[in-house]
Amino acid sequence: MKDYTKFMADRVKTMKGSAIREMFKRMADPEIISLAGGNPAAELFPSDELSKIAGKILMTSPTLALQYGTTDGYPKMIECARKRAAKVNAVSDDDSILIMTGANQGIDLTAKAVLNKGDKIIVESPSFIGSLNAFRAYESQLIGVTVDDDGMNMDELEEALKNNENVKMIYTIPTFQNPTGVTMSLNKRQRMIDIANKYDVLILEDNPYGDLRFSGEDVPTIKSLDTEGRVIYAGSFSKILSPGMRLGYIVAPAPLSEKIEMLKQVNDVHTPMITQLMCVEFMKKYDIDKYIEKNRKLYGEKCKAMVSAMEKYFPAGKVTWVVPEGGIFLWCKCPTINDITPVVDKCLERKVAIVPGSNFDTDIFAPSNMFRLNYSSATLENIEEGIKRLGEVLTEML
Amino acid sequence: MKDYTKFMADRVKTMKGSAIREMFKRMADPEIISLAGGNPAAELFPSDELSKIAGKILMTSPTLALQYGTTDGYPKMIECARKRAAKVNAVSDDDSILIMTGANQGIDLTAKAVLNKGDKIIVESPSFIGSLNAFRAYESQLIGVTVDDDGMNMDELEEALKNNENVKMIYTIPTFQNPTGVTMSLNKRQRMIDIANKYDVLILEDNPYGDLRFSGEDVPTIKSLDTEGRVIYAGSFSKILSPGMRLGYIVAPAPLSEKIEMLKQVNDVHTPMITQLMCVEFMKKYDIDKYIEKNRKLYGEKCKAMVSAMEKYFPAGKVTWVVPEGGIFLWCKCPTINDITPVVDKCLERKVAIVPGSNFDTDIFAPSNMFRLNYSSATLENIEEGIKRLGEVLTEML
Repeated sequence: MKDYTKFMADRVKTMKGSAIREMFKRMADPEIISLAGGNPAAELFPSDELSKIAGKILMTSPTLALQYGTTDGYPKMIECARKRAAKVNAVSDDDSILIMTGANQGIDLTAKAVLNKGDKIIVESPSFIGSLNAFRAYESQLIGVTVDDDGMNMDELEEALKNNENVKMIYTIPTFQNPTGVTMSLNKRQRMIDIANKYDVLILEDNPYGDLRFSGEDVPTIKSLDTEGRVIYAGSFSKILSPGMRLGYIVAPAPLSEKIEMLKQVNDVHTPMITQLMCVEFMKKYDIDKYIEKNRKLYGEKCKAMVSAMEKYFPAGKVTWVVPEGGIFLWCKCPTINDITPVVDKCLERKVAIVPGSNFDTDIFAPSNMFRLNYSSATLENIEEGIKRLGEVLTEML
Repeated sequence: MKDYTKFMADRVKTMKGSAIREMFKRMADPEIISLAGGNPAAELFPSDELSKIAGKILMTSPTLALQYGTTDGYPKMIECARKRAAKVNAVSDDDSILIMTGANQGIDLTAKAVLNKGDKIIVESPSFIGSLNAFRAYESQLIGVTVDDDGMNMDELEEALKNNENVKMIYTIPTFQNPTGVTMSLNKRQRMIDIANKYDVLILEDNPYGDLRFSGEDVPTIKSLDTEGRVIYAGSFSKILSPGMRLGYIVAPAPLSEKIEMLKQVNDVHTPMITQLMCVEFMKKYDIDKYIEKNRKLYGEKCKAMVSAMEKYFPAGKVTWVVPEGGIFLWCKCPTINDITPVVDKCLERKVAIVPGSNFDTDIFAPSNMFRLNYSSATLENIEEGIKRLGEVLTEML
């Protein structure tokens, strides 16, 4: 076959796909218990409700559902997103809202609107691989800042801004962070705003898990603390309604959202109409917060079950973790080793899948002694059994 | 409000939204007859069928429909796309197929995978504004080549390749082109392949209208003539099923499609599952070609009605056009004037909307004496009335 390298843009030459999604392909084996993904619990999807809604929409509003729509989103869907954002004070009068085909698209297109080649973006290290790879695809330079048990280290953040020119933006998942599960304290959120004001940079606040708190008290969004219009907020319906519907949104100051909208126009023109209409109708007919409440309760139980199993099966003193107050992830460190890869491989042999920490690093080639666990998608039985198998491997290898 | 210019990437600083979509926003006035859009005929959407299908899918396969899917597409949807591509010999054993959230996404991400800043891409001038703006957003340089009545001028194409370094790709809509409606002859298609082979460049063949032929004989796709694996093919379900569902696909040699898939993963992760499943089920239960046949017939009638009205109402000898053999667009030239803008403005006053040719040029600031008409979305009555109003304006102003 022909060599296509000469035709490839520099941005893709060294690009690697998400190792997690690659792992999914190897996980076709139904005996494997996956604690690796980031899937919400399918057992709670409101499929009966959505089934009736979808059928009815296509019957009563066929042209609306099947014809082209507008790039910014179906107006009533924009209102639904506004309601969710307003609940956490994440939208001001100077902002516009754009409906996205999943929040990831909003993050990708925000990066595209902001980052030139060589520009710098500060990210939590570790962080969500989908966002990191989106930033990498604009040939920007990622600067990683440590995540403490109460969120991004602010001294390091300030140091990074002091020592680097051309930093355009700070990317953060402040609540139930992926992959660490930790939540940034209010104190740190305020300090991040102060630092961003001082160094005149944007903040991209990604909040896909914020609704999924099962213990502790809500912390205000960073966007709600912003007085200078420098926070762009990404919201998602993936974890509170359905990820397969691909519905998310961006709240951004109008001059920026105009540009992001133009980039969406040349990307997918608009988010599919049927999924937008289904979400609008669902939120009109049902109380989505009651539905979210069921998810919170279930995730709280599943998290508790996972932590109990970890305490029972993990070798004492060899693994540390912070118990999350919400979200879907648990992050583990193994201080006595340097590289978790052999553990992950052995786990796959024993039919349990976990994700090695290196996937979430700004430097994906650096070895990591950490791993991410997900508790939202496996059943309670599989959580127990999966952690048991993992515990056996850890006991053997640590 | 704060000045956001300093935060914007160079690629968006001078970017303008599609003037056509802007025009739509001004066209909220229901009395305006729009001959400006690119919408398929809503009256033929198979909404009853899709209504039953959507309801059933969510009832019987809720997890599949609502959970995360894979980036390349739902396997049965990939097979549906493969069938459509195979029908026009547009897929080889060395190709992979990726499902896209509309073909536009495929064009955007193909450009992203191929074009560095400063790279050159040859396009038909005029051409589809959504693609041109997608290419512009990667800071590539567009080189326009004239569209003759039988497609892109091949001497000019060869000249452009002789005189320019760093040309990576030729972008073409060979069949029922947007905006001209013309179809590239077989002879020219073969010559384009020969030229691409000689100068070692890729071809991106965009074929959203190919199924909509209502007269004349089918011409083989450029992809079907490719022996060296240098044609990437973009297919769409927008004009044969529903544009609001946002379903399209890319057929590309595996090394390229791997990169495009990675870019899709960080863009929208995957195309919504429900729309993919609806398309699969529709193609399984119904003969989509019979449905397309109804569209062809209707568009043939509408095109004929528009041309008859043009012959009746346009000032004799002042406007020229080529009658299309398919698709949804008619392209008119007014050789006695330099700039069509005053005509377009006067038309809006008289409540009929057309698109000025400058929108489709590589140089959007150059005046154009051409305009585009669409005959797929208006009713037969509105086509007659719209062309009558347009004819009156042309008679006054030419």
